[in-house]
Amino acid sequence: MKNTHASPIAARGPADHNVRDQIVAAATDHFSRYGYEKTTVSDLAKAIGFSKAYIYKFFESKQAIGEMICANCLREIENDVRAAVDAAEHPPEKLRRMFKTIVEASLRLFFQDRKLYEIAASAAGERWQATVAYEERIRDLLQEIVQQGRLSGDFERKTPLDETTKAIYLVMRPYLHPLLLQYNFDNTEEAPAQLSSLVLRSLSP
Amino acid sequence: MKNTHASPIAARGPADHNVRDQIVAAATDHFSRYGYEKTTVSDLAKAIGFSKAYIYKFFESKQAIGEMICANCLREIENDVRAAVDAAEHPPEKLRRMFKTIVEASLRLFFQDRKLYEIAASAAGERWQATVAYEERIRDLLQEIVQQGRLSGDFERKTPLDETTKAIYLVMRPYLHPLLLQYNFDNTEEAPAQLSSLVLRSLSP
Repeated sequence: MKNTHASPIAARGPADHNVRDQIVAAATDHFSRYGYEKTTVSDLAKAIGFSKAYIYKFFESKQAIGEMICANCLREIENDVRAAVDAAEHPPEKLRRMFKTIVEASLRLFFQDRKLYEIAASAAGERWQATVAYEERIRDLLQEIVQQGRLSGDFERKTPLDETTKAIYLVMRPYLHPLLLQYNFDNTEEAPAQLSSLVLRSLSP
Repeated sequence: MKNTHASPIAARGPADHNVRDQIVAAATDHFSRYGYEKTTVSDLAKAIGFSKAYIYKFFESKQAIGEMICANCLREIENDVRAAVDAAEHPPEKLRRMFKTIVEASLRLFFQDRKLYEIAASAAGERWQATVAYEERIRDLLQEIVQQGRLSGDFERKTPLDETTKAIYLVMRPYLHPLLLQYNFDNTEEAPAQLSSLVLRSLSP
């Protein structure tokens, strides 16, 4: 994974990553005001008060900075989803919470700020590493829940686990993918509950 | 419905609609060569050899012509889907065929010709009447299949019929909506079968 050195914007420490974090924080601010596409590394350098060469010591390109911002944003969504899942006791409820929370957190992070949406859209459209890794982790979480439900007897066990997981992921995907989510605004209130119910019916033993 | 006078491009007859059909056929050809957005009614008039005023006698705007082209295109998809559904005997197989065929026909009609995709995208994005009516008819067809399956004993009857239909429609929607479908190209081979299986598991009595 490219972004193993990523740490959340909020968690700045006395570590080596201090300057990287500073650049990412300033870039997040700058992109959200002026847009990701329109901003160059020179603009960024000027705005932050670093030289362009200094920024290039830490990030090889604008996209590398965008990837870090994107990774932070996706990590935040994932944390919200994990917290919601952990707070529920039974696998069926975990699944409902997962769907509901991933839509709410995605809407909040991708769309409250139209300028940061641009980064998320590029990331999803061009399949940046941070997005691919995020999708994998979401699928893993889903598989954990399905597996727990199989062990507890809440879910059927006939269908191969990966087939079940993949199909449920396909049902969720239009509501977590920023480029798809923008065409689902009319449905974000009701769809997660309706689709969760359908999925749970499909899982009944 | 706005487009009750619509007749498929191919089926020109000696009727009153002859000139309308001629304009639609010529416009389809022109749009697919030069694009819908870029073409004006003046361009169209010049290309067809009619006066602009004469075209306005039959269509109140460029969008009205676009709507007719779009309605024809959606009608073609719907015919394909209905034929596939009718060819299957049992409700579960009808549902599988419906999903498979709607994806194939939509891909063929929306994306084989990138220029006509523009019309479909405007229609879906701006919720033209032709699109809204099409979506309703697709939901109706889905409801018919679910109802047949309930009567034949293939599907469960506990969940309210409209709840079941709406949820299945939400599962299909990303694969029939042109703006969503463009982000699902990677999945159009496998997803219809995987999602049909999930839906059928959710319908089991």
